[in-house]
Amino acid sequence: MKSKNSLSGLGEFGLIDRISAHVGAGAGVITGIGDDAAVTSLSPGMQLLTSTDMLLEDVHFRRSWHPPRLLGRKSLAVSVSDVAAMGAIPRWALLSLGIPAGLPLDFLDDFIDGFLAVAEEHAVTLIGGDTCFSRGGLVISVTIMAEQYPELIVRRSGALVGHEIWVTGALGDAALVLELLERNDAPDDPSLSARLHDPTPRTAAGFALAESGLVSAMIDISDGLLADFGHIAEQSGVGGELYLEQMPTSVGFRRYAARHPAFPHHLVLSGGEDYELAFTAPPENREKIYAAMKKCGVEALPVGIVTSCPEVRVLLPDGSCYIPQKSGFTHFA
Amino acid sequence: MKSKNSLSGLGEFGLIDRISAHVGAGAGVITGIGDDAAVTSLSPGMQLLTSTDMLLEDVHFRRSWHPPRLLGRKSLAVSVSDVAAMGAIPRWALLSLGIPAGLPLDFLDDFIDGFLAVAEEHAVTLIGGDTCFSRGGLVISVTIMAEQYPELIVRRSGALVGHEIWVTGALGDAALVLELLERNDAPDDPSLSARLHDPTPRTAAGFALAESGLVSAMIDISDGLLADFGHIAEQSGVGGELYLEQMPTSVGFRRYAARHPAFPHHLVLSGGEDYELAFTAPPENREKIYAAMKKCGVEALPVGIVTSCPEVRVLLPDGSCYIPQKSGFTHFA
Repeated sequence: MKSKNSLSGLGEFGLIDRISAHVGAGAGVITGIGDDAAVTSLSPGMQLLTSTDMLLEDVHFRRSWHPPRLLGRKSLAVSVSDVAAMGAIPRWALLSLGIPAGLPLDFLDDFIDGFLAVAEEHAVTLIGGDTCFSRGGLVISVTIMAEQYPELIVRRSGALVGHEIWVTGALGDAALVLELLERNDAPDDPSLSARLHDPTPRTAAGFALAESGLVSAMIDISDGLLADFGHIAEQSGVGGELYLEQMPTSVGFRRYAARHPAFPHHLVLSGGEDYELAFTAPPENREKIYAAMKKCGVEALPVGIVTSCPEVRVLLPDGSCYIPQKSGFTHFA
Repeated sequence: MKSKNSLSGLGEFGLIDRISAHVGAGAGVITGIGDDAAVTSLSPGMQLLTSTDMLLEDVHFRRSWHPPRLLGRKSLAVSVSDVAAMGAIPRWALLSLGIPAGLPLDFLDDFIDGFLAVAEEHAVTLIGGDTCFSRGGLVISVTIMAEQYPELIVRRSGALVGHEIWVTGALGDAALVLELLERNDAPDDPSLSARLHDPTPRTAAGFALAESGLVSAMIDISDGLLADFGHIAEQSGVGGELYLEQMPTSVGFRRYAARHPAFPHHLVLSGGEDYELAFTAPPENREKIYAAMKKCGVEALPVGIVTSCPEVRVLLPDGSCYIPQKSGFTHFA
């Protein structure tokens, strides 16, 4: 008899039981884990929002850099961030895991623990998934479902010329940590490290912006502001000017920048994985947006303006202008 | 400039554009591929059914055995089968791909072609997904969404003592083909090979059985009848007797069996991936079920009976009885 303390002893269905034991009832969940499909019920009048993310070992994360509990947290957080960027209310998640031979059961327990902690923080219920053996590295696939009234959903396509471009929080932290790790130079500031390993999806801010009707377009910053605002610009048929001086950075980021002569602008503009929100809004909404964000405990700043010129340009402090060629992280490039 | 005829030339967003160019409008789709999340609208009064499957190279499939077009077909078909087993109407799918270096663009095109062909056959619209680079093999993750009126959804938990156990189609073909491939003995019968490489989800049959209210529990046979009926038994708090003699097999399977003295019972009972339906129903519904299945062009046969004894046993032609220990495919074992 194999030990129940190893994955091979536990088996596929034992693992599923082990996970589902920690999942409680959730809003709108009729049938959760355990049938051929989960059954859920949308709130009356709301539409369904769905997004999915795949995280692969040594592509999106390294096991040696990323503690399993934080990896579990991040796996759900990045998907929650997608529906937050449309102003939706996250509800249900599916989690699929491809598990390499020899992965310790402790790793899985910690991973699930982190995943379910983020689920609880954002009122998300795990309703299903798939588990299988992987001959490669750890494979994680998460699907998130959310809901919102149709008239409140914020898309990428609504930006209008003259609207201000805003970002929440601070930019570049996650990319800075990644760069330091790649240089074998672990950041000394745990709050900075957390920005890569344990990002906070802006659920409350996204919902507040949607509900208030103050914003015209929104996206989450996963591939860097230049690339992600680029998606808004493309889908709205507009362009934009971003003011480098106004980009918000964290204390930790600025402390690093002060020690290094070449200020890493590219991390702020093109670094990925901050999972902040970028949105556009008419200038007359500025004070109301400050107030709404303050209520959510989230900083937000206007950092640019939507233009009719079909390109995204960065204005530098000396008045010169930079029009980027490569605008963010893209796979296969 | 890299060639648009290679994946690295095309890039992540080029690949997404290439896929979405082939996706048309779909029922209930408000916003499809291209925003942070897809937006869909359920039919009034219906609930949402969601299921997800992960397929990993050299675990679930081998590229050398599985032509890319059929792999694309199967990737969606196995998920459609899950919601068919609950009697639901498949609607929307998400597709995530982790793509290894050097995978030919032709392979991807054929894969997508097959995936979208099955989507069209079952009125499913691809509404989103994720694409990324994989350092291991090809990674495929599919989420299917379906809808159905709450009172028509068929679960695993409704089987009652005295109900008959039914299966659609024929059992063991997929497992037989897999066994032959593993012996480097490619099956000479293309219709037999298709049963492994291109399974047919029983969407119409599942829906007809749900709508008619004739059945008490249902599941799709992905891990072998013994294991999958075992799930019905467990969740319904019952047991079952299966009659080996009555198990439906295909002409191709019987031809193989005739040439081999040891008739491969285990393939019929414990072979996976047939994606037929197993369901239970009161005996008085027998004729109506035959009629409903005939209308769908699907064969179905009663092959056992639900019992109060909490185990699943197989009755052999000589009157003896076999109580299996290991009941089907399970990962990590």
